[in-house]
Amino acid sequence: MPGAELRDSVESALGRVSRENLSALPPRIADPIRYALEGGGKRMRGMLVLAAYRAAGGTGDASGLAAAVEIIHAYSLLHDDLPCMDDDDIRRGRPTAHRVFGVRPATIAGAVMIPLAARVAHDSVRGLVLPSETCCTIVKVLMQAAGAGGMIGGQLLDLEGEGAALSRDELDVIHRAKTGALIAASLQIGGIAADATGDRLSALVGYGTRVGLAFQITDDVLDVTSSTDKLGKITGRDAALRKSTYPALLGIDGAKKRADDLVGTACEDLRLQRMLTTELEQLAEFIVSRTH
Amino acid sequence: MPGAELRDSVESALGRVSRENLSALPPRIADPIRYALEGGGKRMRGMLVLAAYRAAGGTGDASGLAAAVEIIHAYSLLHDDLPCMDDDDIRRGRPTAHRVFGVRPATIAGAVMIPLAARVAHDSVRGLVLPSETCCTIVKVLMQAAGAGGMIGGQLLDLEGEGAALSRDELDVIHRAKTGALIAASLQIGGIAADATGDRLSALVGYGTRVGLAFQITDDVLDVTSSTDKLGKITGRDAALRKSTYPALLGIDGAKKRADDLVGTACEDLRLQRMLTTELEQLAEFIVSRTH
Repeated sequence: MPGAELRDSVESALGRVSRENLSALPPRIADPIRYALEGGGKRMRGMLVLAAYRAAGGTGDASGLAAAVEIIHAYSLLHDDLPCMDDDDIRRGRPTAHRVFGVRPATIAGAVMIPLAARVAHDSVRGLVLPSETCCTIVKVLMQAAGAGGMIGGQLLDLEGEGAALSRDELDVIHRAKTGALIAASLQIGGIAADATGDRLSALVGYGTRVGLAFQITDDVLDVTSSTDKLGKITGRDAALRKSTYPALLGIDGAKKRADDLVGTACEDLRLQRMLTTELEQLAEFIVSRTH
Repeated sequence: MPGAELRDSVESALGRVSRENLSALPPRIADPIRYALEGGGKRMRGMLVLAAYRAAGGTGDASGLAAAVEIIHAYSLLHDDLPCMDDDDIRRGRPTAHRVFGVRPATIAGAVMIPLAARVAHDSVRGLVLPSETCCTIVKVLMQAAGAGGMIGGQLLDLEGEGAALSRDELDVIHRAKTGALIAASLQIGGIAADATGDRLSALVGYGTRVGLAFQITDDVLDVTSSTDKLGKITGRDAALRKSTYPALLGIDGAKKRADDLVGTACEDLRLQRMLTTELEQLAEFIVSRTH
């Protein structure tokens, strides 16, 4: 996996959140939040915040913004696993939060991770000494991605699509929202923090949208081709739930090709804006070539 | 009830949110949010935002900020009613949201009301043409009140206190967080939007903290003295759950006196800062004298 240094930076920022923002809270709330934040994961979204920030010329420490995005992502996974949602027992090879802490604390912890992320983003912008205007915009983008028009809307559509035959366009709409919204927001936030505007910012967001969709397609492919052991979550689930997926619609090779094409276009657009850094290129390639 | 004009202003703002912010969402998410927002209620918190704004000299239309606070309040009630929380069937005389729409959409709708509130507050500050700095601060205060250190922490402590014998101090801590945090934030947000600072802002927040606690004490008293029909929710519940309450600790008259004292001090502090408007005085009196 590329960008070990980026990943370390995201992990450190999450450690700071755990120490500075959670220590004053009752353990019954802080513990499930910590558990959700410490669950490992690829930290793809946080790394993309940092990579976008640097690609747009940022030179400060934007790791707090990366942490904010990862908090929103962790909240979405935590709620996604709840009995009233996907009802999952395993996440990243560990029991899910509600299995460890109970449904009530897990539900509460998930919901309060949203204002926590807003707070962490706010403090991080202060640390970067950016104008208040930028602070407002970044928090707004983060909240929008976390909101009903973003990944959560997609999550509900996805759950409701179980058992239904969806077209590729319908599937794109769902996954643009479910996975793409937060990934695109990661790029947007990194870009805004480095003062990117106009075509440069659009290219970053476009990269995020395409790479986000490629990420989801690869997830679908791995659900068919990988083992539960390797993936750290139960595979073959999509088929069991009769969910529409990209491999089902396009075949495994067709799905892989679509993901490659999306990543190719994403990188090409950034190249035109002279923002295709090695980090962003490697992250995009990793997203479609990963095996877990 | 005092301040019918204030209440109308809050209702109109919530109607605008429903039309402008929710119409683009899938009905499966928008409908439970609308249901939660349209549930009537006293709109006490929204009215307090507006009253504080005016008391501090504000002359614009701050109703969007009032709506933002009411959205957070409605989210907390919606999640509070879920099967994994209080498991309530009735709220304000209507079936609770998860009874109407199902647990999954209700859980999702509740969570996305947090970023929705941030968005509505953001847009409202823009409408008032306040500096970006003020926008940042207001969204931060709102998110803090909605977070784990605020009402949600109190909610969990409250649920966990069921069956335990708590002291008056312990009960105060719970209710300062559970009810007081958002009411104090309402006053704070109204004050900040009107550019109140220093002692003037402190007096507003102090009023909010005291009146918030008085509100909770009155709620406890009504749970003993009122009927289910009148209150629109099931009464006698606290005793059935063996929850520590103010009437249980102080007797009904003692609890009522404590609420009156809190309101008296709250108003006196504002009077010293020349900010005790008729609106704020009447709202405080209503809070302890209400019968539902």
